[in-house]
Amino acid sequence: MTHTIVGKSITRIDVLDKILGRSKYADDLEFPDVLYAKLLRSKFPHAQIINIDTSKAEKLSGVKAIITAKDVPVNTFGIQFKDQVILASNKVRYLGDPVAAVAAESKELAEDAIELITVKYKELPAVFDSREALKASAPKIHDGGNFAAHRKIRLGTVKKGFQISDEIIEDSFTTQKMEHSHIEPHTGIATVDANGKVTIRSSLSVPFVARAELARVLKLPITKIRIIQPECGGNFGGRNEISLEPYIALLAMKTKQPVKMVWSREEEFIGSTIRHSYFIEYKTGVKKDGRLIAREVKMISDAGAYSSYGESALTKSCILASGPYKIPNVKVDGYLAFTNQPVGGAMRGFGAPQVFAAEETHMDHIANNLGMDTIELRLKNALKTGDQTVTGQILHGVGFTKTILKAAEAARWDKHQLLTEKETNTTKRGMGVACLIYPVGFTEKANPSAAFVKVNSDGTMNVSIGALDVGQGSTTVLAQIAAEELGTSINNISIVTGDTDTDPYDTGPIASRVTYATGNAVRFATAKAKQMLLEVAAESLTVNIDALETKDGVIYVRGAPQKCISIAEAALICQQKGKPVAATASFNPPNALLDPETGQGKPYPTYVFATQIAELEVDTQTGYVKVIKIVAAHDVGKAINPALVRGQIIGGIGFGLGQAMLEKMVLAQGKNLNPNFLDYLLPTSLDMPDVEVLIIEEPEPTGPFGAKGVAEPSNVPTTPAIINAIYDAVGIKINDLPATPEKVLKALREKKG
Amino acid sequence: MTHTIVGKSITRIDVLDKILGRSKYADDLEFPDVLYAKLLRSKFPHAQIINIDTSKAEKLSGVKAIITAKDVPVNTFGIQFKDQVILASNKVRYLGDPVAAVAAESKELAEDAIELITVKYKELPAVFDSREALKASAPKIHDGGNFAAHRKIRLGTVKKGFQISDEIIEDSFTTQKMEHSHIEPHTGIATVDANGKVTIRSSLSVPFVARAELARVLKLPITKIRIIQPECGGNFGGRNEISLEPYIALLAMKTKQPVKMVWSREEEFIGSTIRHSYFIEYKTGVKKDGRLIAREVKMISDAGAYSSYGESALTKSCILASGPYKIPNVKVDGYLAFTNQPVGGAMRGFGAPQVFAAEETHMDHIANNLGMDTIELRLKNALKTGDQTVTGQILHGVGFTKTILKAAEAARWDKHQLLTEKETNTTKRGMGVACLIYPVGFTEKANPSAAFVKVNSDGTMNVSIGALDVGQGSTTVLAQIAAEELGTSINNISIVTGDTDTDPYDTGPIASRVTYATGNAVRFATAKAKQMLLEVAAESLTVNIDALETKDGVIYVRGAPQKCISIAEAALICQQKGKPVAATASFNPPNALLDPETGQGKPYPTYVFATQIAELEVDTQTGYVKVIKIVAAHDVGKAINPALVRGQIIGGIGFGLGQAMLEKMVLAQGKNLNPNFLDYLLPTSLDMPDVEVLIIEEPEPTGPFGAKGVAEPSNVPTTPAIINAIYDAVGIKINDLPATPEKVLKALREKKG
Repeated sequence: MTHTIVGKSITRIDVLDKILGRSKYADDLEFPDVLYAKLLRSKFPHAQIINIDTSKAEKLSGVKAIITAKDVPVNTFGIQFKDQVILASNKVRYLGDPVAAVAAESKELAEDAIELITVKYKELPAVFDSREALKASAPKIHDGGNFAAHRKIRLGTVKKGFQISDEIIEDSFTTQKMEHSHIEPHTGIATVDANGKVTIRSSLSVPFVARAELARVLKLPITKIRIIQPECGGNFGGRNEISLEPYIALLAMKTKQPVKMVWSREEEFIGSTIRHSYFIEYKTGVKKDGRLIAREVKMISDAGAYSSYGESALTKSCILASGPYKIPNVKVDGYLAFTNQPVGGAMRGFGAPQVFAAEETHMDHIANNLGMDTIELRLKNALKTGDQTVTGQILHGVGFTKTILKAAEAARWDKHQLLTEKETNTTKRGMGVACLIYPVGFTEKANPSAAFVKVNSDGTMNVSIGALDVGQGSTTVLAQIAAEELGTSINNISIVTGDTDTDPYDTGPIASRVTYATGNAVRFATAKAKQMLLEVAAESLTVNIDALETKDGVIYVRGAPQKCISIAEAALICQQKGKPVAATASFNPPNALLDPETGQGKPYPTYVFATQIAELEVDTQTGYVKVIKIVAAHDVGKAINPALVRGQIIGGIGFGLGQAMLEKMVLAQGKNLNPNFLDYLLPTSLDMPDVEVLIIEEPEPTGPFGAKGVAEPSNVPTTPAIINAIYDAVGIKINDLPATPEKVLKALREKKG
Repeated sequence: MTHTIVGKSITRIDVLDKILGRSKYADDLEFPDVLYAKLLRSKFPHAQIINIDTSKAEKLSGVKAIITAKDVPVNTFGIQFKDQVILASNKVRYLGDPVAAVAAESKELAEDAIELITVKYKELPAVFDSREALKASAPKIHDGGNFAAHRKIRLGTVKKGFQISDEIIEDSFTTQKMEHSHIEPHTGIATVDANGKVTIRSSLSVPFVARAELARVLKLPITKIRIIQPECGGNFGGRNEISLEPYIALLAMKTKQPVKMVWSREEEFIGSTIRHSYFIEYKTGVKKDGRLIAREVKMISDAGAYSSYGESALTKSCILASGPYKIPNVKVDGYLAFTNQPVGGAMRGFGAPQVFAAEETHMDHIANNLGMDTIELRLKNALKTGDQTVTGQILHGVGFTKTILKAAEAARWDKHQLLTEKETNTTKRGMGVACLIYPVGFTEKANPSAAFVKVNSDGTMNVSIGALDVGQGSTTVLAQIAAEELGTSINNISIVTGDTDTDPYDTGPIASRVTYATGNAVRFATAKAKQMLLEVAAESLTVNIDALETKDGVIYVRGAPQKCISIAEAALICQQKGKPVAATASFNPPNALLDPETGQGKPYPTYVFATQIAELEVDTQTGYVKVIKIVAAHDVGKAINPALVRGQIIGGIGFGLGQAMLEKMVLAQGKNLNPNFLDYLLPTSLDMPDVEVLIIEEPEPTGPFGAKGVAEPSNVPTTPAIINAIYDAVGIKINDLPATPEKVLKALREKKG
């Protein structure tokens, strides 16, 4: 099927306003009489609150309101379990746990007021290591203990599998805590109207979920909460749950003035959710010919002080632990442990970056042990169309093998040994490959997307959706889907979003689901609207409706394009008949629950596949690793907008590079020692390698025009590809992320002996 | 059928924000770098433009842009005919016709710049009297001449009718030009994003119609125009077409800065549309027993310089010229004439206030001639259910006779003569009655309304509509309709409107149509959403869906209310199944065109009826008339919110009182001599009589819960009731509005001789 708009690299609709600096972010919004809010956060990782004295702060001139736990109508929240408190009442569980909030006439006054609040704590013994936390002797962080979740995958019989294996390879791996580091910190402004309706301007990724959660916390009907999303300065999972919204809402309700809160960069590190750190152990049994026979994986994820998305992310980790490979016997046990550390939440890759860093370096270990080419090992075990995943889900449209072959070809993997030609006495070259299976969306609970479309009397179309473009370009992609389905120019589509009062429901830009789920909703709603136009056209052209097609703004008879009527004319006729063209539709992947004992089931609606190959150079004198090039072959189903797919992949590679070599939150006794961009290193454009993107398109039957998605997966294989390339270059195996120059140098020295 | 929410005087949802001064009107909105725009208007009523020189103005520092006709992509507009220009190029047709527009850094600079533009005119002979304008010798205002329209009603044979009549009574009547006088002047702010999308914040009543019109004028796709409506400070028809929007849009497009324009009160008088003045001649043949046999009416409406809504209003005048009475032979001719005067447009009553002022005083003249009680005359000829209107439309649910009887009873019409007891030597009392038939909505072209509803997971519902509450309380009424249909509390409904990008299509709050048309759309969309909830409930309660009813937030089995599930539970189940409850629906009264030669057809979907009785006192020494009391009996179909119906009627009576006794634009050679509230007198609260409202409910089968409407009709009978009461008090017949003290005194003196 040929497409007119889908598959074209349309320029991002929002790009001009962004590059001209005209886009308005939450902190750009001005309100008269606005108050500034600040949080008082716990200074201890684990302590009992004996007393909170706000009297001095209240007396400070310009302080308008102070709230503590007693002011919160329902003082619990949490995505999966309501184990988190809005404001701590009897106990703080991490260094950063909010205790009180102040609204004052200036930021400085709010900060001064925070200093004047005295909290009497009784320090409690704390635990910072997730393995320690699971021991019976560990200090209990929650009443139920520190054991937050246990997720299992059971397929075949690993014991038997290992018995019949020729070799058994074992590895252990440690991943770091990471911060999303979106440029725009958490920012929000709350206003309250005379009827008590609370409007919050904040670029949450999940406005509808957050609206319901806020309604519960504030004990208000959902209709009394309105979330308006300004432009969003980056998400990466960091805005997937409520954060500062309850505080500004409560302070605005109390003061009846607009209240703004902007988190400092330090607060982003200590107070926002972070990527969970993992301890992972792999054991795989293989045949001499490379066939994977059995695999046993154990992992412990550090939830931090509260559960947040911890269990969902762990579930994904467990399911993906066998990689994009067919393994008949698998046993995975994932544990989630509470510690007195910052709260782990959703972050790009959601449990996959940790497990693939381990799994794909483990695969290289297996290949090396067998003396096999690592690509050959992957090809031999690769999942194919019709295969079942480790949870028993039958796969359709699997472009995995193609990603391996295309990537290997582009990277000239067969000329691998020629890399030595580029080496010097002090620089060594290496090439590493890593593969990926990654799900789009989820099924464990409903995650619908809806769209509302209106075709105007000139044939242009307004589309309302509830999924904000958080920077990835989704609005452009959805406009392309709408234009393609209607059969008109992209210039005739206008998409609006960012207001829970007017937008149709959407689960939001999480789980790489927007192109797939919101895209389907937009397509279905457009198709319904188109049907109204076709009915009018069929009547006007006196043909059967089935004989009609649309393209370039025209409705015409298939095979006789001169018999036609423009979409504009048809829309005008509908309008003149008093039936303005409008439709709403929604999409939800069918819900499915996994068997809790075996993990069997259909946890995700569809999967993408990828192979990335990194070429790099290691300076053996400094340990500095320069990534030269990354070839990234991604099966996205259908690239609605190839330039945006490319952009996502390049962005993701930067993310993966940070995980591989630079980023790590350094914590000591629960205290973050590098809560800023001077000490927490992010890759810059100068760190970026040359990237060659190869788009593979194995259409997904349930996706819009065959599309699956691309958002999160792009960063996941980058990390192990780099680690594998370092091994290839200098023969050292980094199993504790990130591979900093210090760590590489140390390993080089140890290897030398 | 009993209702839970409908019929209750729910407090207006928006009242608190309004009385606390928190509502934001267009001029309250602030934008950085905003420019202020000002129009240069013609100083001549009729002239050729020889040259426009903007060079001096352009050199003034702080002036950012000046536009003239050459800058307007499509320099025509008009509701029915595109005979009006955005900026005059070769000709100006009234004193106030816009010639150029300036955007500058301050209001003062913009005004200075306007002064610096020199326009060389060649004055043309002008015509200011609509009767003169229709003569062949009159100066031609438009190429096609001054004859703008001729509308006809033909029923039976008036010639024969007059022949068999016992008496023939003739009258002539003159009505004045009036200004809407909404407190908020026309105000708008235009911004343009980097993609050239124009957003206009202005409280237009017809945002969707205006959006299409602006798209045409600016040569942009409709999707490139977004109209956002802030709170509206009064409408009364004065915002029913584009006004300042093209200027601010063009200036914002040129300067790439926000541009604001606020019309002065003087500009409101000279530059906004006004109520057409009419010359009207009545001739009615009656039998001695009071039966109306034949009627011939001629009227000339002064269109002013452009047609605007003139023809539509004239059509309504012609149709209503036979009043709410059954007359077998009717001939009406209405003419619309261009003059070099301000443009007539839509204004509360839309052609009815003029014609009923004549018709209902003419009815009293007939009764007096016959020596009959005027109420008896009206009762004898009153339209009843099943009767045909003068256009042949069969009436349903006519509560007209009830309004007469109830009003007469409340006013103690039978004790009429006792009024003399309250008289003094210099004050005389009188009582006057006037009746009304008035249509709701229209059918001459499509005028759809749509709604989009979402039921949230706690059973609350967000409703999106495109009809702004312009002050009449429609949002509260629509929330009641939604709550009643869903079967829940009014507190669970939230309505949002005022954004063409997100709202479903609506024709807007014109023609008294919101309760009826938008109300139907809201009801239908809610019913669709309810159906989704009932399906879930039927499954959950294992009953047939037809057995279910909803009330107070609960879905229960009819006759067995203990078998139930809450709407919240059902909504949550839908949500959890991935089908968030949402629906859209639209309503349009079936289109119908009148026969152009006879006026026969179905011009309106439904009609309301009213009788008002005024009691007043005339000071024979000063001519001052004090209206003591007005009894107003209105058949509204169903009063969704009786307090708001009452409010509308009281407001309308103030409007009618202004027409009867105070308001008149005084023009001399096309120049307005009283363009301000010092010289153009509006009634104040001190002028208001005691008002007794009687609500009659004859349900309209096609209306939501039987409702028809109430908006415009309330002011129409007030005027003739007052004029008739003056006659009753002192025996003078005012046939030239308004009945100012000077005019009354003059008539008293003339009567005395």
